[in-house]
Parts: sequence; structure tokens; C-alpha cells
Amino acid sequence: MSELIIKAKNLKESSNILKTLNAKQKNKAILEIAKSIEKNKEYILTENKKDVEIAEKKGIKKSLIDRLALNEKRIKGMIEACKTVVNLKDPVGEMFDSFLREDGLRISKVRVPLGVIGIIYESRPNVTLEATILALKSGNSVLLRGGSDAINSNKAIVKAIKDGLGNSEIPINSIELIENTNRELVNEMLKLNEYIDLIIPRGGKGLIDFVVKNSTVPVLETGVGICHIFVDESANIEKSIDIIDNAKTQRPGTCNTVETVLIHKNIAEKILPALKEQLESKSVEIRGCEKTISIIKVKKATEEDWATEYLDLILSIKIVEDLNEAINHIKKYSTGHSESILTENYLNAMKFVNEIDSAAVYINASTRFTDGGEFGMGAEMGISTQKMHARGPVGLKELTTYKYIIQGNYNVRD
Amino acid sequence: MSELIIKAKNLKESSNILKTLNAKQKNKAILEIAKSIEKNKEYILTENKKDVEIAEKKGIKKSLIDRLALNEKRIKGMIEACKTVVNLKDPVGEMFDSFLREDGLRISKVRVPLGVIGIIYESRPNVTLEATILALKSGNSVLLRGGSDAINSNKAIVKAIKDGLGNSEIPINSIELIENTNRELVNEMLKLNEYIDLIIPRGGKGLIDFVVKNSTVPVLETGVGICHIFVDESANIEKSIDIIDNAKTQRPGTCNTVETVLIHKNIAEKILPALKEQLESKSVEIRGCEKTISIIKVKKATEEDWATEYLDLILSIKIVEDLNEAINHIKKYSTGHSESILTENYLNAMKFVNEIDSAAVYINASTRFTDGGEFGMGAEMGISTQKMHARGPVGLKELTTYKYIIQGNYNVRD
Repeated sequence: MSELIIKAKNLKESSNILKTLNAKQKNKAILEIAKSIEKNKEYILTENKKDVEIAEKKGIKKSLIDRLALNEKRIKGMIEACKTVVNLKDPVGEMFDSFLREDGLRISKVRVPLGVIGIIYESRPNVTLEATILALKSGNSVLLRGGSDAINSNKAIVKAIKDGLGNSEIPINSIELIENTNRELVNEMLKLNEYIDLIIPRGGKGLIDFVVKNSTVPVLETGVGICHIFVDESANIEKSIDIIDNAKTQRPGTCNTVETVLIHKNIAEKILPALKEQLESKSVEIRGCEKTISIIKVKKATEEDWATEYLDLILSIKIVEDLNEAINHIKKYSTGHSESILTENYLNAMKFVNEIDSAAVYINASTRFTDGGEFGMGAEMGISTQKMHARGPVGLKELTTYKYIIQGNYNVRD
Repeated sequence: MSELIIKAKNLKESSNILKTLNAKQKNKAILEIAKSIEKNKEYILTENKKDVEIAEKKGIKKSLIDRLALNEKRIKGMIEACKTVVNLKDPVGEMFDSFLREDGLRISKVRVPLGVIGIIYESRPNVTLEATILALKSGNSVLLRGGSDAINSNKAIVKAIKDGLGNSEIPINSIELIENTNRELVNEMLKLNEYIDLIIPRGGKGLIDFVVKNSTVPVLETGVGICHIFVDESANIEKSIDIIDNAKTQRPGTCNTVETVLIHKNIAEKILPALKEQLESKSVEIRGCEKTISIIKVKKATEEDWATEYLDLILSIKIVEDLNEAINHIKKYSTGHSESILTENYLNAMKFVNEIDSAAVYINASTRFTDGGEFGMGAEMGISTQKMHARGPVGLKELTTYKYIIQGNYNVRD
């Protein structure tokens, strides 16, 4: 039996214990993890340094090394994350949609963990901790497959987590890391339907597409966000500029950042110069359609721009005839993440929310709100852009499922 | 562009119209379908006769021909099904989990159709109608791939449905049938992530496994049910026998029928002779474990029996040491459908429902209740045995998803 299968089997077994633990037991374990991260801080930082040095030798670009590198502050962030998750309400055990039939049979749904969650992610080693504690708090075992760049950091963090679990009632093999980062093993992992209940890919489009294409285990797609804002002719110009600014610059590397702004032709001349001024003062590069560049002097947008998630201080702008053209553009290029209409016209607002089928559809607000914290979940595993199971921020509840419990008095079906 | 792609594209487009229709418009369309089925009755029966004759020539077994054959009564059943679905509450548009943030941003979930649902099924031509009206009522377009045995019947039914839709606001290409029943086309269909939002396989284990293994489109697994009843030592003997009888014989060909009964060793000698008598009076063949055959004279069960969904008047019986052995047996052989404990011991009942992770877990009731009708959904597309998205009976609500609608007043994120 391969190491992967042995680990997967262990996870399935431990998930049977984990799912019976109450919130007190799980919270105690997560606090033990926090203590252990603190205790193993120097060890984690030393191992992380190895990864950073290898990455630097490879000539990996600075922004990626920044994502990879841990420091005192980031370790503190990991410990804080544990405390945040401890304070979240445990969704497991909630009984809902309960009803009593005429024949006295009571039918209820009860929220239960999924079982074993597989997470495939890229360079950020803090994900190792954050994903683990969300999975454990929601009663799930977790199989981690991090990027090869962070392998020493991930091993050290997993060791610290297991040390912590040793002082708790959660079995230490409720978490396993695939240490061999050969891609073939990912492929093998994606076929382990017998042991894994859900795969969550966290990373770029390439990773997500690979997982969707190759997994026979159900997948929760997260992430890619080509988000749009449509500025209708009735929108308040000043407030619209503030929203676009916020949606683009507040944290440009995130998936809920706006990438394309669609502007109603009747408001374009009024809003564009001021929008350009405000965005350029924040170092945003604007790429505009033909009509846009006839009004303001910016780079010309190509077809590729409409289909790109920049994750950077770049914004594409297109002038549209009307709401219909805006909706059609969004339908064509959206990744189903977050879209917003800025308008004071009631019918247009209603039409937009009815016709746009993305995880989060906004009226007069920044797309940056699509976030587990902002949506009141406290923390999240990512943003689902698929339609099955869960859409939008994936918090603890979204990491669970339900089963029916039917309580009878020796009832038979007529 | 292949015919399949053209149809899939049409479905995606029509789903954008369909999702905006209200219940009145959808109900009118379903009643028009019912009228058209009535009007085209002779045509459907003639085409069905062709299928039956071909099947008879091929020497297909009688039970399958019985599933294939339509008659006046079954056509009437299809028309009745339309009326049933018209009377069901439309889940689309329901707003839930709504809350107002401190900054005045209102965040709500609203129930929306999935989009395009692909259904792959085997011989019963009535499924063509039943699956279609459930999909349409929940606002989804539907791509049908029925079995080759029923192709003439399916074409005729789809023609009648489209005729009916012609008198309604639902676009006629909200439903398409794949007329070429070559398996290669199924494979192609399973990869159409751009156009299809969900694939539901309805049929035997072979079909379901094929779909799970090959689909890149999300799948809702339905069906296979190796269901168990555990008779605890404290159970009432007479009532337990009635439940086992009901769970086995009320409709033996269904997925919620019990296949294996586990009996606590301390009650085995008391229950087995009477159970044998009652079941044999209903022509049930019993296959027992070693211990069972030392008490009653029945055929010996093999390892294969524990892993078989008989869908027939056959029942396997195993005597177990205790509740733990029963739970472990179920964990090993269950397909996650329905399991029941018969007991008057509170702790055992609780342990059973906590540890058994099937779609439906029963205390003191027949497994036959796992059914959309019995669970108050009115009708169903099948029984989900997977954990993602929906478990148990798949009714209208389970054929939908939700999106977030966020209503602001030019809010930006701090």
C-alpha cells in the first residue's frame, strides 16, 4: 500500500472519531495547536528559511517569495487565527427543517461533517494551518498537499500541529501532509473516492482547471475572480469613483477585486476624467476600449484584457450602450464570483440582480465585501465560484453536509 | 459544431430565459405539456410499441420489457405527474439567511435554478417526462440521454413536450434529447462544463460509476441502496418483524428496500423462526450467516451477499454480537442510503444515529420511507447517496442553488 493510501485510510478512520467530538473538545485541540505553534516558532522559522533560500536560488520572483516567507508577525497571525476559529460557532449537530408527519414519524435534518477534505494549495505556508483548523473545527479530517516551494515549512507546521493534537482528543492522524510533491501523487489523490469526500483546490486557474478535469472526488472550486462593476447612467459619480477605487486598490491581489468596469455611455464623459485622476494617483494602470480612449488618454484594452484576472493594479474599462450590453459582457467574461451595479434606478437594479448569476451580486457596493469575515462567517476556506453545494465564501457551515434522522414508533409505509 | 454542442448551447441560452419565469408561467407550460401528452397519446404508444418489439426480438428479459412498455395507464400516470408538479411550491426566488450589517449593507441568499441539468437514465420512458417537468418547474433546462432501448418512445415524448411548450413562455429548446445513443456521446456530454451545470445519472451501479469516473461536470449520484436494519436486543419482536416485512416486500425493486438485517445475538432465537415464517409467506428467500442457519433452515449467505443490492425478494441476515458489530458491518457495506435501528434502548438509538453516516438514519421505522413523496417534497428526481449539495430525496429545492444578493448604499470596505 502506498504512503498516500495509508494516510488516506488513517484519515477516514480518524474522521469517524472526529465527527463525534463536541465543540469543547475541538476548541481545546485548536488551542493546543496554537500553543504548539508558539512553542515550535523557531523551528518553523528555520525550516521556512530553507524554503526561502531555495526559492531565491531558483530566482523565483519577489512577490512569490513574499508569500512564502514567514516571520514573527505571520506566526502571530497563525496563532490569532486559532483563537478566531475557536470563537466561531460549531455548525455540527444543528437540527433543522424538522417536521412531524401525521403518522407520528419525525423527520429532521442534522448537520454533520463531510468526512475527509483534501486541500491542494500553492505557496503560502500559513494556509497549512488555516485550512487545517477550519477543517478540524467543522469535524473533518484533512489531507494537505501544499506546493513544493513550501515543503519544509509545511512539514514543520504539520509537525507542530500534530504535537498540539497529541494533547487533545482529536486523533493526531486527523491531519496528514503529502510530503512527496510529485504531481503524479496529486493525480492519485484526486481518484481516492473511497477515502476523500471533497477536494478543495486553492490557487491559480491552472491548478483549479487541473483538479476539475482530473478529479473523480467531488470538487469545491474556489477562487478565480474576474469581477465587474457596471456604472449605470443614474449613478452618483463621486460615490461611484470611491467604490471603484476601493474595489480595485484596497487589496489588489485578492479574488474579489474588480478587474473590469463597464460604464454607461451617457455617464462616461462625466466620470472618466475624474476616475482616471483618482486611480492614477493610486498607481492604477487603466486599459480602455476604443470609446474610452477617445475620452481619456489610457492604454488600449485588448480582447485578452476582458478575460484576465489581473490580481494587480490594472483596471480595464469598457463603455457600453446600456444595461443589456453590460449584462451580456458580464455573462461572457465573468467567472461567477462577484459583480456590482451602481445605479439609482430601481428597475435596472432589479434586472441586474435577477439576470446576473454570480456567487455575489451587488447593488451599490464594492465587490471587496465577498469575504467570509465580511459575510459574518469569521473565517473562510476560500470563495466558491461553482453552483453545487456552496456558493461564495466557504466557512465552517459550508464544510459540512446534513443527514436525515427519522424517529419513529415502529412505523411502516402504507 | 456537433449536434450535441448545438443543443447544449441552446439549453444554456434558454436557461437564461427560463430562470426569469415565475411559477405561474412555468405551471402553465407544464399543463400544456400534459395536454400535449394526452393529444399525442396514440403516437407515443405507437412509437413505444416499436421499442418493445425490438426489445422482444433481442430477447431482452421480461422485467426490463415491463419497465419499457407504456400503456393507457402509464400515459395517465405521466399526465397525473404533471398535475402533481404544478401543485408543488416553486422554490425559486426564496430569500433566506438575510441580515443587515452595522454599515447598512444587507446580505441575503436567494434561491436560483442551477441552469442546465443533464440526466442520463436507462430504460423507463416515463422518466423522460418526469425528469423534464421537475427540471423545468425548478427553472432548469434539461439535456436528456435515455437508453437506446427506449429511443423511439423518448423521441415521441420529447416531441410531445416540445409541442406543449410551443403554447407557453418556456422556450421549446429548454429540453433536448440526445438522439444518437452511442456511448461516445455520453462521454462528450460529461465534459461539457461550459454548458451543463449538473449531471444526474439514474440507473444501475455500472452507469453511476461510469458517470462519476468520467464526468468533469459536477455529478449528483443517485440510487444504489444496500440498506440495513439492525434489530437490537430490546426491540419488540412482533413490530420488528412487521417493519422488516414492510422494508423488504412493500416494493422490492426500489433502492430504499432493506437488503441485510442484522440481529443482536440475544434476540436471534426469539425472532428468527417467526420472521422466517412471515417472510416466506411473502415468497422472500432468506440467506443467513453461519449462526443464522444454526437457528433456522435457510440458504447460506456468502461474502457477496453483504455487498449486493438485490432489488428482489431476497434478504440476507447476520447475527451480531452487539451494536458495535452492527455499526461496523454497516460502515463496511452500506452505500450511504438508508439504515434503521429497531430498539427501545435510548443510548443505543443515539449511538446509532450519531455514528451511522447515511443519507437517512432511522430509529424504529421502515427504510421504505426514504422517498420524496414521504418526505413531503411531492416528487423527486432520485435519492442522493453523496454528501455534497444534497442528500436523500432530490426534489425541486435540491435542483436549485443560491446566490448572494448584497444591497448597499454606495458602501466601501474599510
